[in-house]
Amino acid sequence: MQYLSQIDSPKQLKRLSLPELEVLAGEIRQVLIDSALASGGHLGPNLGVVELTLALHYVFDSPRDKFIFDVSHQCYTHKILTGRKRKFLDPAADSLFTGYTNPRESEHDTFLMGHTSTSVSLAAGLAAGRDRCGDDYRVVAVIGDGALSGGEAFEGLNNAAELDGNLLIIVNDNDMSIAENHGGIYRNLRELRRTGGQSANNFFTACGLAYRFVEDGHDLGALIRVFTEEKERQRPLVIHVCTQKGKGYEPAERDREAYHHLHKPGKSVAGERGDAITRQVLLKKMAADPSVITVCPAVPRNVGADTAFREQAGRQYIDVGIAEAHAVSFAAGMAKAGAKPVVLDYGTFLQRTYDQLMHDLAINGSSAVILSFTSGGGISAMDAAHASMYDLAMTASIPGLLCLAPATKGEFVEMLEWAVDQQEEPVVIRVPNRIYTYQAGRPFTAANRRQFQLVRTGKEVAFIGLGQFYDLACQACSLLARRYGIAGSLINPRVYSEVDETVLQELAASHRLVVTLEDGIVSGGFGQRVASFYGTTAVQVLSYGAEKEFTNCVPLSTLYSRYRLEPACIVADIARILQAQEPERTEE
Amino acid sequence: MQYLSQIDSPKQLKRLSLPELEVLAGEIRQVLIDSALASGGHLGPNLGVVELTLALHYVFDSPRDKFIFDVSHQCYTHKILTGRKRKFLDPAADSLFTGYTNPRESEHDTFLMGHTSTSVSLAAGLAAGRDRCGDDYRVVAVIGDGALSGGEAFEGLNNAAELDGNLLIIVNDNDMSIAENHGGIYRNLRELRRTGGQSANNFFTACGLAYRFVEDGHDLGALIRVFTEEKERQRPLVIHVCTQKGKGYEPAERDREAYHHLHKPGKSVAGERGDAITRQVLLKKMAADPSVITVCPAVPRNVGADTAFREQAGRQYIDVGIAEAHAVSFAAGMAKAGAKPVVLDYGTFLQRTYDQLMHDLAINGSSAVILSFTSGGGISAMDAAHASMYDLAMTASIPGLLCLAPATKGEFVEMLEWAVDQQEEPVVIRVPNRIYTYQAGRPFTAANRRQFQLVRTGKEVAFIGLGQFYDLACQACSLLARRYGIAGSLINPRVYSEVDETVLQELAASHRLVVTLEDGIVSGGFGQRVASFYGTTAVQVLSYGAEKEFTNCVPLSTLYSRYRLEPACIVADIARILQAQEPERTEE
Repeated sequence: MQYLSQIDSPKQLKRLSLPELEVLAGEIRQVLIDSALASGGHLGPNLGVVELTLALHYVFDSPRDKFIFDVSHQCYTHKILTGRKRKFLDPAADSLFTGYTNPRESEHDTFLMGHTSTSVSLAAGLAAGRDRCGDDYRVVAVIGDGALSGGEAFEGLNNAAELDGNLLIIVNDNDMSIAENHGGIYRNLRELRRTGGQSANNFFTACGLAYRFVEDGHDLGALIRVFTEEKERQRPLVIHVCTQKGKGYEPAERDREAYHHLHKPGKSVAGERGDAITRQVLLKKMAADPSVITVCPAVPRNVGADTAFREQAGRQYIDVGIAEAHAVSFAAGMAKAGAKPVVLDYGTFLQRTYDQLMHDLAINGSSAVILSFTSGGGISAMDAAHASMYDLAMTASIPGLLCLAPATKGEFVEMLEWAVDQQEEPVVIRVPNRIYTYQAGRPFTAANRRQFQLVRTGKEVAFIGLGQFYDLACQACSLLARRYGIAGSLINPRVYSEVDETVLQELAASHRLVVTLEDGIVSGGFGQRVASFYGTTAVQVLSYGAEKEFTNCVPLSTLYSRYRLEPACIVADIARILQAQEPERTEE
Repeated sequence: MQYLSQIDSPKQLKRLSLPELEVLAGEIRQVLIDSALASGGHLGPNLGVVELTLALHYVFDSPRDKFIFDVSHQCYTHKILTGRKRKFLDPAADSLFTGYTNPRESEHDTFLMGHTSTSVSLAAGLAAGRDRCGDDYRVVAVIGDGALSGGEAFEGLNNAAELDGNLLIIVNDNDMSIAENHGGIYRNLRELRRTGGQSANNFFTACGLAYRFVEDGHDLGALIRVFTEEKERQRPLVIHVCTQKGKGYEPAERDREAYHHLHKPGKSVAGERGDAITRQVLLKKMAADPSVITVCPAVPRNVGADTAFREQAGRQYIDVGIAEAHAVSFAAGMAKAGAKPVVLDYGTFLQRTYDQLMHDLAINGSSAVILSFTSGGGISAMDAAHASMYDLAMTASIPGLLCLAPATKGEFVEMLEWAVDQQEEPVVIRVPNRIYTYQAGRPFTAANRRQFQLVRTGKEVAFIGLGQFYDLACQACSLLARRYGIAGSLINPRVYSEVDETVLQELAASHRLVVTLEDGIVSGGFGQRVASFYGTTAVQVLSYGAEKEFTNCVPLSTLYSRYRLEPACIVADIARILQAQEPERTEE
């Protein structure tokens, strides 16, 4: 590491000659490969932008000049050059910094980012704000071709064209999204690559933007030349740079999807996963009924649609590219036509479809199925931009949407099979992350789909554990019995878009305290609906879940401890509440 | 009405000759003008598509063939031709049908629609579903040029290009959005109009779609010819039709923005309006500070940014076109640059920015101000697609967002002035619809922005009336005192993103019942947060607001009655609850 060892800030980079920078690029590439193999991470996208990032930092003057890396999963070279190389050099230091840009980590980062297609809008805002404030730094957005299919990227481009200050929009075109690209504009990008940027028909100029083409995005000299020529430009410009995803690492060049992101070795969950079960059920359903169609907005791999699934599904699998809003409306249209669409997405990205879930799906009663996946659970050790803590509260507020959260493998399969076949209503299912195989109530059926399952009838204290947190409810219930001799009731609600008033009313007769547990934010969530139901009764309600706060890569055990999501904490809280009630009780 | 009197279904249309259809077009146009002047409605957009709609119904075979009118505020001719002309002929029958498409009204309507830019996605889904189900009807989306700036329209076009069945996408280009268009693609549309569709650079073909141009969208013969030629086409096609907004009514042709939508005569609210106050405050702030920038996603007129405001604001007003997601991210960027952006939008459209509010704004702590307007209140007589019942629950679930709901004019002004000036945190303000001028607590200040205002200290029952519903709380409180001699407490919370634990804890000592009132959905809302806070105490909580249901143009009085949002109902409920508690009380 002849050169990398000397670099701790972009300033030091500027002393190097072009040949030295090229050696440095090779060093960084090796670090990226070694680091990803040891600790996981977004390998492919980062290998593609080593030279691009070096050229940016060589020509521009960060942190005065601002870089906005779309979704920021291609920011590793940027992080290496801005004082955070330790993360990549030492596997033990991996957790020192996140894999995304974050202004709290470095003054060289402008935004915390993790959802795609927002960079042009943010950069346009930054540029417009700079000009209104009379400042004169430069603003550069870097957006991948995959993110261009997202509607907000287009909204950003369309509006950037109206600005008149300095703004460079670098389109990093590696001809791939996470998986392959989908959509008509990719034909135009291909045509632009084929013609060396000369095609008269040009998506970017049609959006009103000036345009420049760089054929080889790994030619450091060319990049430096173009950036130097354009850096002072006083009107927005798109620089279309062709790069290769996985560049310089043969396995990643060959299998660009698999190497888009590598999991941390040894981190994979044992046993069956929710996506594996999803895959099995959907393949069976699709084989039996050609009108069952799986739709995915560009995140197929860990939501059940791996390459084998896609091959087998054939035309019954549709990747719409990064375009979550479209995915939901498209599914609403398909269901209206009598087909049976199933949308696969992460809960964190479904946040982009709140309006479509309400308007296109729910108001229209379109019977599409939406599967909401999490990474490591609703409450998780994910970064702030990828936590799936909000989908339960969000979907439950939308009228006309049946929202289900299975606690066990069996009921997930039953729910999914029913939801795909039925053509009555839109259904959201929070896909289980951990697979419990015990029975938790009667089998799920169309008839009982709005009924809470009273799995065990006890008294004094009732535990309502939603979805995956049913298991935690079981544990707390057992511990309460062991420790205090109180045999509580256990409820597996399954449905979270409404409360089952019959079951809740029954509980009121013989229970003083109802404890709710949900794998998501408490504020606006399931437990508060239960608390409100009991609001004018003597039944007390204690709700567990996440606090309303952003957490960024906090270990799960820390979060569980902070939110008291442990049987011992829950039972201690219950004991305290019951004791506080005692004086009244004795007077009864 | 020589011909219109004979037409009750599209079938009857097909018997007419071209000259007869042209006479019919004139008759319809006159009906549209008379009806809009008498009863209000979207005049301009509908005058522009009379011939287009006649040609569609003449060539295609509705309801077998499906039309999807984007946002559906240009569907009046369609409604007239499909059995609903009474609405337009007889002002007394105006309320028989809504102004939007709705499958419950007619088999000729495919979706209930009211938010823009979704039609291409829905139509693509319908077409894909049709093909998977082996059906063979035709699918036509009609989308205005204004709606093209919305990201989902682009997502739809980009994905429609991948389909291989019949799908016509008619771009109704009247060179206007609600106000003028904003964005780079409108230069391309202008170029296409100028070149008769021959420009090599073409936004639609760059999106991968086949393209055809119709110069005069009021030439019925030309439209019928083109639609006839293309109706059986087995690949998606964009037909770019040039029309004139307000066509045939001189005032509407001249002032296209004012005649986009006419209010029902006599329906305008007396006295000051929230948008008028917004206008005054923002003009003052902008004059004092050039970094205060107002951003609006294409709905300026009733959110404070009328033409006079825009003229005065000059470069300090930015219309980003119909692009809500961009508006929020753009504002997040501006705030990061040190500017002071204020986004003006309706709560119903803010639903499209849930993810941007969370990710670009809140996670990044960008100090933009978001003003959420309603049409006639959160709970309102609006159609299902325009009700603003959900924004309170939606925004309150997002960490890091300070959400305020002023009860009176004075505190709205105080909040807005503070929010614009501060650069600490993102702020959402629900703009008042009715203007109350009394004082309801201490003046709003930075220091007390997270504090509930205990306006009147009583006992037994506490009323917490959020925002505009504070007044209802006052009325109920007075009635309770008069009728039952109970002097309750009155709280104006002002902030709804959190509960003020200090105030709530104080109340617990001397109150048995807390009544919450909010102008929005109860499920996931403010009252449930209060209920959850008191969950493990003896304080009972009764929450008022909207039920979780879609309501479509239901009179406000009916809704208020249904939700018991009347002092007498509230007091009767309270009395019942207090009586039920009595046996326990006497034992105290």
